[in-house]
Amino acid sequence: QLVSAVEEHFLAEQKLNNIKITITAGPTREAIDPVRYISNHSSGKMGFALAKAAAALGAEVTLISGPVQLATPAGVKRLDVTSAQQMYEAAMAQAVNSDIFIGCAAVADYRVAEVANEKMKKQGDSALELKLVQNPDIIASVAALSHNRPFTVGFAAETQHVLQYAKDKLARKKLDMICANDVSKSDIGFNSDHNAVTLLWQDGEQALAAQPKEQLANAIVQQILARFSSEN
Amino acid sequence: QLVSAVEEHFLAEQKLNNIKITITAGPTREAIDPVRYISNHSSGKMGFALAKAAAALGAEVTLISGPVQLATPAGVKRLDVTSAQQMYEAAMAQAVNSDIFIGCAAVADYRVAEVANEKMKKQGDSALELKLVQNPDIIASVAALSHNRPFTVGFAAETQHVLQYAKDKLARKKLDMICANDVSKSDIGFNSDHNAVTLLWQDGEQALAAQPKEQLANAIVQQILARFSSEN
Repeated sequence: QLVSAVEEHFLAEQKLNNIKITITAGPTREAIDPVRYISNHSSGKMGFALAKAAAALGAEVTLISGPVQLATPAGVKRLDVTSAQQMYEAAMAQAVNSDIFIGCAAVADYRVAEVANEKMKKQGDSALELKLVQNPDIIASVAALSHNRPFTVGFAAETQHVLQYAKDKLARKKLDMICANDVSKSDIGFNSDHNAVTLLWQDGEQALAAQPKEQLANAIVQQILARFSSEN
Repeated sequence: QLVSAVEEHFLAEQKLNNIKITITAGPTREAIDPVRYISNHSSGKMGFALAKAAAALGAEVTLISGPVQLATPAGVKRLDVTSAQQMYEAAMAQAVNSDIFIGCAAVADYRVAEVANEKMKKQGDSALELKLVQNPDIIASVAALSHNRPFTVGFAAETQHVLQYAKDKLARKKLDMICANDVSKSDIGFNSDHNAVTLLWQDGEQALAAQPKEQLANAIVQQILARFSSEN
């Protein structure tokens, strides 16, 4: 009922046609050398489904995507990036022109301190220490904008203490909403076509049961729009 | 002419129908924690093309593949693996039952010393040292078999000093042949549909010009069969 009420509200006022939404999706890849990299299991499906759902409602959607094997949803403007640093730069440029920013990408927390220009050779039989440094925190940087700050929605993909970590991240990074996602189960999560999440905000939460990612994406976008419209 | 002579030779004697070939293909993925991993840019296209070419000539082909986005060629038995350790175990089990072993996979030299059971959390603002240990050397282990050793063909995917590194690897790992592959160029190599290689063996070499991977795979398999038959 809430969903259809929101939908009618926006459709009636044609408000979504003026709303700009930026969404990040997929993994990032952090180069070790020209052939090796560090990445993660994000398929990008959830972010692409959010972009499709938002565009179908009439929003102007920009999708900043890491390396994925997915087609761009109709009507969505797509920017491809590889590393977390590239995604950070694209996100910061888009965020100040967006009403809503949804950080759904699984951004690498760390990159290799010194990327080798040529393929690294094995060093005898010895072990190796790979020095990593932190990447910029994209969602925290967007939420911290002092001018033209969009309504900022994060994702917390966790394997344990999922709601607890998500609540902590919501507060610590000063987000408007967070989408808590348990990725420890193989039937939902990164490479599955199904997912279940709990949306959390300052003074409320809403659990969304396991369902196809496209259907879930619609429900998430509706909830985000409801929160956004109540605050704007 | 050499190619068609070899083909006629084998087809005439129906010898390929009795030849068992094991091929490894694609990258391996080394887990850091449940969501993060180390991998490389190998697409698996070259190994899959070799498997297709060998099967089309009537060989009994087993393809041991890392995580790739490719369909299994007709008539090929496929074994899927993720990590270098898994590929090593599958390869050693297959090798002793094979006439020819072609190690085309881009196997990770290193894996993470201690894989975390839960998603690792950022440690403040500090850097991180990821401790890596060496994986077993699959192609050297196959070439070192004292019983039922197959004719062993390696690949050297390099970004510099390609022929020099390949010759060194051929001798050091006691291979029968090696396929030297310059992966520094984006128009040939890991993610391209084209490739150019130089085949090297103890007392000879053969350069194969840039061409579609499927066509090149045919030429490589023919050369391998020619060398194999001259030594058996």
